[in-house]
Amino acid sequence: MQEEKIKDSRIKAAVLADYSDSELRGDPELLIDSARGIKECTEHSATFADSSEYLSRALNSAAALIITKAELLDNLELESFDKTFLLNDNPRRVFAQTAQLLTDRPYYTAQISKKAVIADSAELGKNISVHPGVIISANAVIADNTILAPGVIIGPNVKIGSDCLFHPGVIIERDSEIAEKVIIQSGAVIGSDGFGYASDKRGHHKIPQQGNVIIEAEVEIGANTTIDRGASGATVIKKGAKIDNLVMIAHNVEVGEESMLVGQVGIAGSTTLEKRVTLGGQAGVVGHIKLAENTTGAARAMVTSKTKPGDFISGAPAHDHKEALKEQAYLRRLPKYIKKIKELEKRIAELESE
Amino acid sequence: MQEEKIKDSRIKAAVLADYSDSELRGDPELLIDSARGIKECTEHSATFADSSEYLSRALNSAAALIITKAELLDNLELESFDKTFLLNDNPRRVFAQTAQLLTDRPYYTAQISKKAVIADSAELGKNISVHPGVIISANAVIADNTILAPGVIIGPNVKIGSDCLFHPGVIIERDSEIAEKVIIQSGAVIGSDGFGYASDKRGHHKIPQQGNVIIEAEVEIGANTTIDRGASGATVIKKGAKIDNLVMIAHNVEVGEESMLVGQVGIAGSTTLEKRVTLGGQAGVVGHIKLAENTTGAARAMVTSKTKPGDFISGAPAHDHKEALKEQAYLRRLPKYIKKIKELEKRIAELESE
Amino acid sequence: MQEEKIKDSRIKAAVLADYSDSELRGDPELLIDSARGIKECTEHSATFADSSEYLSRALNSAAALIITKAELLDNLELESFDKTFLLNDNPRRVFAQTAQLLTDRPYYTAQISKKAVIADSAELGKNISVHPGVIISANAVIADNTILAPGVIIGPNVKIGSDCLFHPGVIIERDSEIAEKVIIQSGAVIGSDGFGYASDKRGHHKIPQQGNVIIEAEVEIGANTTIDRGASGATVIKKGAKIDNLVMIAHNVEVGEESMLVGQVGIAGSTTLEKRVTLGGQAGVVGHIKLAENTTGAARAMVTSKTKPGDFISGAPAHDHKEALKEQAYLRRLPKYIKKIKELEKRIAELESE
Repeated sequence: MQEEKIKDSRIKAAVLADYSDSELRGDPELLIDSARGIKECTEHSATFADSSEYLSRALNSAAALIITKAELLDNLELESFDKTFLLNDNPRRVFAQTAQLLTDRPYYTAQISKKAVIADSAELGKNISVHPGVIISANAVIADNTILAPGVIIGPNVKIGSDCLFHPGVIIERDSEIAEKVIIQSGAVIGSDGFGYASDKRGHHKIPQQGNVIIEAEVEIGANTTIDRGASGATVIKKGAKIDNLVMIAHNVEVGEESMLVGQVGIAGSTTLEKRVTLGGQAGVVGHIKLAENTTGAARAMVTSKTKPGDFISGAPAHDHKEALKEQAYLRRLPKYIKKIKELEKRIAELESE
Repeated sequence: MQEEKIKDSRIKAAVLADYSDSELRGDPELLIDSARGIKECTEHSATFADSSEYLSRALNSAAALIITKAELLDNLELESFDKTFLLNDNPRRVFAQTAQLLTDRPYYTAQISKKAVIADSAELGKNISVHPGVIISANAVIADNTILAPGVIIGPNVKIGSDCLFHPGVIIERDSEIAEKVIIQSGAVIGSDGFGYASDKRGHHKIPQQGNVIIEAEVEIGANTTIDRGASGATVIKKGAKIDNLVMIAHNVEVGEESMLVGQVGIAGSTTLEKRVTLGGQAGVVGHIKLAENTTGAARAMVTSKTKPGDFISGAPAHDHKEALKEQAYLRRLPKYIKKIKELEKRIAELESE
Repeated sequence: MQEEKIKDSRIKAAVLADYSDSELRGDPELLIDSARGIKECTEHSATFADSSEYLSRALNSAAALIITKAELLDNLELESFDKTFLLNDNPRRVFAQTAQLLTDRPYYTAQISKKAVIADSAELGKNISVHPGVIISANAVIADNTILAPGVIIGPNVKIGSDCLFHPGVIIERDSEIAEKVIIQSGAVIGSDGFGYASDKRGHHKIPQQGNVIIEAEVEIGANTTIDRGASGATVIKKGAKIDNLVMIAHNVEVGEESMLVGQVGIAGSTTLEKRVTLGGQAGVVGHIKLAENTTGAARAMVTSKTKPGDFISGAPAHDHKEALKEQAYLRRLPKYIKKIKELEKRIAELESE
């Protein structure tokens, strides 16, 4: 059924070229119905190739339209292949844009299911899709074109912008504010209480977590990720940040614009990531520090201190990546050098006994 | 709306002083309606300061009541500030208590939603809040004043004590036993099957997980954390333990009283944490060992052997924290020492050739 | 109630021996109603012992039937114990099989709850259990004897084989294909979008994730684990693989037959694990590599390159486990050797000054 919808919405190659600022080489009238990996292409598909190797595979695939770089076509005899080309310095980006145009939004129905539970005081915009099992609590506000897949729970006083897509089972806790074009994958929890206690001999006394979570436009959040509300004030995920699955964002963290946090990353409380910080899988960051713009932490980095713009760090504790690599290499050679020390000691003893 | 409720329930400064065993300096009749971070205070708020720096900020904030230590007021000219003070050696604890008094329990309605599904054989106490989408299975027993937020699932034969708060989407699997005043954050799973198989050449044969999970009073469990049921017998979380988000507790683990497990910690099967064990974020503990009372494992510690009371360990594998720090420091200096070894070798060769 | 069911389904010791290819010593007519840990046994229970120590405990327990190895009975005077024995080289496997026979499938009702929401276009086989709060979307197909516990969400176009058990709150996203006898624990997400973007100066452009997830027979997946759909093509979990809680499987990963991934493991995109790969808790594997058959990565291993069949690796970056242990040992002795270097330098200086 989805398949058929796609077939009804073919787009001309010339339109795709125009939309993505690409150069067209071939048939401008060519109709494209899908953008796919090379193996999955049909005769109406676009695919992309950003290396000679992939280009060769694409030329020999079923794809009708190949998105690639102009320079990769040099010295190739293209006559034998019946292909049309979109040429751009960033074929991967053009592929992403093409695929977005040709792919239906999942769970789009533009209907409010009677099997959803919606509080009387909730305000819903136009053209919203609400699936069975969705719960929308008191005073929630949801803007136009947003999609709530089955089983999404929207807590009290939550505000959600337009054109969002929340996958099944997403939980938005009370008072969260989410801007437009935000995508949240299944099972993610936005606005859970932070881990805040005052301890004494009698135990750990919970500090009520009175803040909220603010998510700016075009953010994406992965499956079963958790973002705690601020203890007081907000935890903020800034515009265009992308967060993968099973990531833990503690209270009062600020994740900078267009930052990318890969799976199973953890950020402790009150830490700030500035713009375009990238953290590899399973990296961790201690609380109360600031990672400067364009910091990159490698996978599994354990970040324990602030960084300067553009730093690339790794290891535990994380430090300059080149230094860390060097230390790893030395560590590998340590047995050899310890043998050397023993040998030198012997030679010294001989010298001494002379 | 919540805001208004709080305004209706102002509490006198003298009552707060009495409740928290603090000394009052200023206006005993002062009415307080909220306890907040310094920046978020209104003219009816309490805040707290446990250092001179924060005290200075608090004095210049909108806050009416400042919770602090007596000694921090020495040498300050307080006349120019129109503030009342609660003085205590543990201002953070007094702030926690004050905030608890002044903050509404989230999701409190004292009503059973008609959009919940409740088995006929379930037993519900008084004053329980059950939200839409909640499912309560056969033979479940739920005591007074407990709150089940939207979408909570209570499995068969589960017992839940009084005054609990389960946030949206919490899942309590069959046969779990939960005592009073337990808070569970969204998406947490209590009582999933443990990872138990008997392997041979034909594959991995599942060992049915026949135990359950027992959670004692005043425990808090974080969002999307998972606690497996015992293979046989129980997995136990003891009184007052606090567990953060995305933590993994395997089958037949015992988490000691007032232990604190920070985000993304993992504890393998049949391990015992004694009282007041603290594990930093992303720490891991192997199975079948015992961590003694007051053990602290730093963030990312990989704990592979038992500990003595009061041990502070870090690293992978984890060992004495001071030793681990020293090794880190030596590792940083390793390139320098390897250069030194080469230099010494040269000098020895020269001596030998004389 | 469950307890009584079990009592109604006692099985003779002779039948258990036959079913598990074990030798029977004792009473073939003995009726067994449960298979339990030694401490939890009743007078109708089977238990198992794979060491002399456990055998001694089992002999002194309430158990009627002890599953053990023949050699452990040598030199024991068994007359004083009124026990029957099942003898097998793999008592743990026989225990697993016995327990499976004697334990009810959780959530089995063979009924379709009226409080579930089932799309008209969904196809349901025979003898299916569908609990309250379950949502089955358009065009889903579910085969015979499968159990969907409360709150399970089945997305559009999902295919599920026979004899599966999905625990409460499991989410199966659109287009997933799941074979027979698959068990999925609570809160797991199958088919979330992979983390795929094309980045340029304007931001990160989402690459629509158009593939799906394919799960073969007899796989088990842990609580709150997430398995991303392929970007294009499938993410595949092969027959008999077992995956623990809070594991992250990225897009287009292939997990080999009978592989075992312990809690909090993360596998980055397009990586292939061949048959019987084992990864300990919190291990991580980078993208686009292949781990050969029978590779074992220790807990917390950070696997950054391909392996050969049978490799046993640990550390970060992971390498041969024996080498890694040696390096750890040398690292511990580093302070001692650096002291030695300083001492040698002094002795050389003395020699030089002579």
